[in-house]
Amino acid sequence: MTSQGDQQTIGVEYWRALGQQLRVDSIRSSTTGGSGHPTSSMSAADLMAVLMSRYLRYDFDEPENPANDHLIFSKGHASPLLYSMYKAAGAITEDELMSFRSFGSRFQGHPTPVIPWVDVATGSLGQGLPIGVGVALAGKYLDRLPYHVWVLCGDSEMAEGSMWEAFQHASHYGLDNLTAILDMNRLGQSGETMDGWNGDHYARRAEAFGWHAIQIDGHNPEEIDHAYAEAIEQDTPTFIIARTEKGHGVSSLANQLGKHGKPVPQGEEDAAIEELGGNRGITVEVQKPDSSPEPTVTSEPTGTLDLPVYEEAEATRTAYGEALRAIGNVREDVVALDGEVSDSTRAQKFAEAHPDKYFEMYIAEQQMIAAAVGLSVRGYAPFASSFATFFTRAYDFIRMAAISGANLRISGSHAGISIGPDGPSQMGVEDIAMMRAVHGSTVLYPCDANQTAKLVAGMSDTGGISFIRTTRDSTPILYGSDEEFPVGGSKTVRESGEDAVTVVTAGITVHEAIKAADELAGEGTNIRLIDAYSVKPLDAATIHAAVADTNGRLVVVEDHHPEGGIGEAVLSALSETGEELKFRHLAVNNMPGSGTGAELMNEAGIDSEGIASAVRELKNK
Amino acid sequence: MTSQGDQQTIGVEYWRALGQQLRVDSIRSSTTGGSGHPTSSMSAADLMAVLMSRYLRYDFDEPENPANDHLIFSKGHASPLLYSMYKAAGAITEDELMSFRSFGSRFQGHPTPVIPWVDVATGSLGQGLPIGVGVALAGKYLDRLPYHVWVLCGDSEMAEGSMWEAFQHASHYGLDNLTAILDMNRLGQSGETMDGWNGDHYARRAEAFGWHAIQIDGHNPEEIDHAYAEAIEQDTPTFIIARTEKGHGVSSLANQLGKHGKPVPQGEEDAAIEELGGNRGITVEVQKPDSSPEPTVTSEPTGTLDLPVYEEAEATRTAYGEALRAIGNVREDVVALDGEVSDSTRAQKFAEAHPDKYFEMYIAEQQMIAAAVGLSVRGYAPFASSFATFFTRAYDFIRMAAISGANLRISGSHAGISIGPDGPSQMGVEDIAMMRAVHGSTVLYPCDANQTAKLVAGMSDTGGISFIRTTRDSTPILYGSDEEFPVGGSKTVRESGEDAVTVVTAGITVHEAIKAADELAGEGTNIRLIDAYSVKPLDAATIHAAVADTNGRLVVVEDHHPEGGIGEAVLSALSETGEELKFRHLAVNNMPGSGTGAELMNEAGIDSEGIASAVRELKNK
Repeated sequence: MTSQGDQQTIGVEYWRALGQQLRVDSIRSSTTGGSGHPTSSMSAADLMAVLMSRYLRYDFDEPENPANDHLIFSKGHASPLLYSMYKAAGAITEDELMSFRSFGSRFQGHPTPVIPWVDVATGSLGQGLPIGVGVALAGKYLDRLPYHVWVLCGDSEMAEGSMWEAFQHASHYGLDNLTAILDMNRLGQSGETMDGWNGDHYARRAEAFGWHAIQIDGHNPEEIDHAYAEAIEQDTPTFIIARTEKGHGVSSLANQLGKHGKPVPQGEEDAAIEELGGNRGITVEVQKPDSSPEPTVTSEPTGTLDLPVYEEAEATRTAYGEALRAIGNVREDVVALDGEVSDSTRAQKFAEAHPDKYFEMYIAEQQMIAAAVGLSVRGYAPFASSFATFFTRAYDFIRMAAISGANLRISGSHAGISIGPDGPSQMGVEDIAMMRAVHGSTVLYPCDANQTAKLVAGMSDTGGISFIRTTRDSTPILYGSDEEFPVGGSKTVRESGEDAVTVVTAGITVHEAIKAADELAGEGTNIRLIDAYSVKPLDAATIHAAVADTNGRLVVVEDHHPEGGIGEAVLSALSETGEELKFRHLAVNNMPGSGTGAELMNEAGIDSEGIASAVRELKNK
Repeated sequence: MTSQGDQQTIGVEYWRALGQQLRVDSIRSSTTGGSGHPTSSMSAADLMAVLMSRYLRYDFDEPENPANDHLIFSKGHASPLLYSMYKAAGAITEDELMSFRSFGSRFQGHPTPVIPWVDVATGSLGQGLPIGVGVALAGKYLDRLPYHVWVLCGDSEMAEGSMWEAFQHASHYGLDNLTAILDMNRLGQSGETMDGWNGDHYARRAEAFGWHAIQIDGHNPEEIDHAYAEAIEQDTPTFIIARTEKGHGVSSLANQLGKHGKPVPQGEEDAAIEELGGNRGITVEVQKPDSSPEPTVTSEPTGTLDLPVYEEAEATRTAYGEALRAIGNVREDVVALDGEVSDSTRAQKFAEAHPDKYFEMYIAEQQMIAAAVGLSVRGYAPFASSFATFFTRAYDFIRMAAISGANLRISGSHAGISIGPDGPSQMGVEDIAMMRAVHGSTVLYPCDANQTAKLVAGMSDTGGISFIRTTRDSTPILYGSDEEFPVGGSKTVRESGEDAVTVVTAGITVHEAIKAADELAGEGTNIRLIDAYSVKPLDAATIHAAVADTNGRLVVVEDHHPEGGIGEAVLSALSETGEELKFRHLAVNNMPGSGTGAELMNEAGIDSEGIASAVRELKNK
């Protein structure tokens, strides 16, 4: 805790000097990089100076130490400040800091876990705090370690509803290991925030949500020091509302509109640095945690996985819940979250068997995904479930989770128009498009219960963002429980000769295709039927071989909008092979209402009748 | 206001009887329909009985009357209650009520504007209140009419952050014409809500957000009556917290877990109806508004549109802002909203010229889209803007807006990896996939400023959900200001003979393709270059003709992930034509970091070098 550049003891003068150094380095790095947010860094510099030198417990040499505190910059655009802290901590060099925002540098415009001390990518506002809730849940309920989660928040992002989801959940779960620090610098990007410097507004809201609130001058090190000391003593989460100035310390920048996201122009930085007392060389010895415990959790199975076996028709959503329950028996890292529909998604089956590893996230899908990402930071393997369509609510969080490199499993139930009477608001018909477009994602869509069980097990071993799409109603059993369904594979349900038509589908429409095949067989027309249960990655080789065998005749049918779904995945997979296709795409082109699943699928032309009709049309081509 | 069935005067006994009738009809319709949410309807029946008979001002014969109040069921699953109110109001027949959830009936599982008295589709929780904020904004700031916006909220949906966005914005904008009624029935779908019957929690939060809060017994008509009277007198929005019982009035249902979303089984409904006092025939004469003013706004231009003209390189985002400003000069219905980045999206140009028609929505993209939908309910033509990638935050709202049949224009700036140093959190690389998958959507992606101006004008005349994707950096001018760019069209930028390779692209990569064409021309290789600025609907005919002309040789390049973007749109468009393709798809397959736009596009292989290389590879095939 002693400084090496300036030989001072920790105290007000030290903090003032360190704060100025962080400001200077924020200016230097962003001016050199040619872009970035120095002013939003400068407002929070004193807050971070006190935190890193007295409160943060973090071993920069061992970022995987389970006892480390967690520091999340929810206001990710203050990355120059974060990187300047790394330099002050001796974790990075001057040259590394000056590589800010340059091609190939890990010190990107917004923090990502390419940097070993960054837990999660931020930069989409309103995500760091809800993710912090997830890390704090892990600390309190799973790791049971005394680490603290510190989240630096911007005041503009307080307008994001996801922040209030985080406030609710942190209070509901009694997260006394969580402190959010509000850098209330008054100024947003294009103007003043909704609440400006009205700290009372923020305090009343935080208190109404069950948090302890502390209002301080964010440039007064003593007040900051006292606030942190008070925060870690609370038995509730704490919200420190720090009144600050954007660009503090440089008269031409301080508290000025129009200075957001703009580096100090080259040539003008020297005067700014001089006003801040010049370049300093303080190195902070950040305190390490008291211990370095073994990893708290492992993905190694503790026994033999005993997946459920189905011999009679069952809903794939039920198989999801029962398979997850079984996986929970032998995988201590597997945890589940649900958006208060666990009786529908069947996550309830896991929750009942493993109540200590289940987190009820209520109707707050953004917080659910954020919490899952936070749990993933601590090495857990979260499965998050809701209706497929309600993950549209959390798409920004899913997209960012991919940038975070999070391992996140998502189960979307009630997929497609086949759910019937509930109507279009409950029907997932954009979910495949949405999930396929996520970087590095895996998209699975089973049609029977045994297949589902195997795919859920496969997901538990799959990194990155994976998504399984399940069906509301029972579907017949097609596959024996001894069959395997590797990610990236497919099943050829009906073989055929070259006079046939290839039909590719997945999920509920596999059963419609079988009905069509049976009907067409009576007419002497054969279908080569491929169950493309792995929509991404798709089994391009099998599909290509089938299409080549059947003279290019291909029907793709899906209970999904035509854009971005199975049809386009198949076309992409075949596109570079140069096959001449005779193609029909059956998908949901209309706006459905209520009705039975059968009525709605018939109306959309994706049932056995629609498939048979498309096959008849193609067979002589 | 007199009842016709029971000849009573309006008062406690009348309200009790009407409440019971609404419960009975909720049970009858859902039992007949075989699914639905009677218990969630029964909790709010008394609240709605008092509202419809004394406070609501609504002309069911003239739903377009601008002076009508607005009643939004944010808890859309209580549709049996809403439809029972329509029957009680004499607006629908017994047979229509009993068609609930059947195929072809407009009385779907959740309300949609297929019904003339429904403003917007609900059923995805947490949307009705933020949309109500939009309607109330229209009432207070644009229509300047005294109608009141009543929103019935569920307690489970209070966990959605979007509700708190609505609380913030309603208070910020002083929406004294908005009353939210919380049906606090304690029980969610799978268990108790986070706050149960803790009305104080809700009241403190609402008050902290600047609302007037009233706590009542939601089954006491007198208390309900007084609460509404108090609400309409406030100069702030009001939150009525009504403690209710789910399934109230039927002992086997009331306040029971496990009764969510389940109709009373056939055969058991008679006992329930008897307990509620049997079938009644009360008809409520709902009060009409005092006046029937002319429509407050028209889309008819008030003058000649004078779009900006560009002769030098300019960013398409700037052309967006300047074109919108020009449209605002002649279209009184055009309004704009932005998520506190209007200096980046350039919506600021509209805001400065038309401050009365601009709504700052701060960093709250869900509330922004919801408000736009609410403004669309009142006949305005909203344009909502943010970074393209941040619309992932509001995807559920956009999806639901399509079900609502809303006319909504969205502008997503900073598309693609070409934005450079800010890094992946700010890069829209899923937005085309997401927006294409929306039912009936239009997706536009201009490459120069003159084209942008024309497309923005085209959007203002396009119904449904339309999306324009703009670029951060300046791009050269390709097109004269006299050229037209109809939705559904394309531009052939370079013509060619059949020895050429067709290149289809849009936006910033058009300029890369031109560079590639120039370079390849030196080698004697020609490109047929198509600017597919209308990604949906796509100009399939032109693309097909080009591909046929160039012997099937096709490169698609896009600054977007490969899934669901321009490449797959083109493959879909060509899929049923049976062309044998020699195809290469250049898209963003990697996870970008920071760097210059040129560096990142080169790394991803979507710059002129990547295009030239793909063309060379295909030209001899």
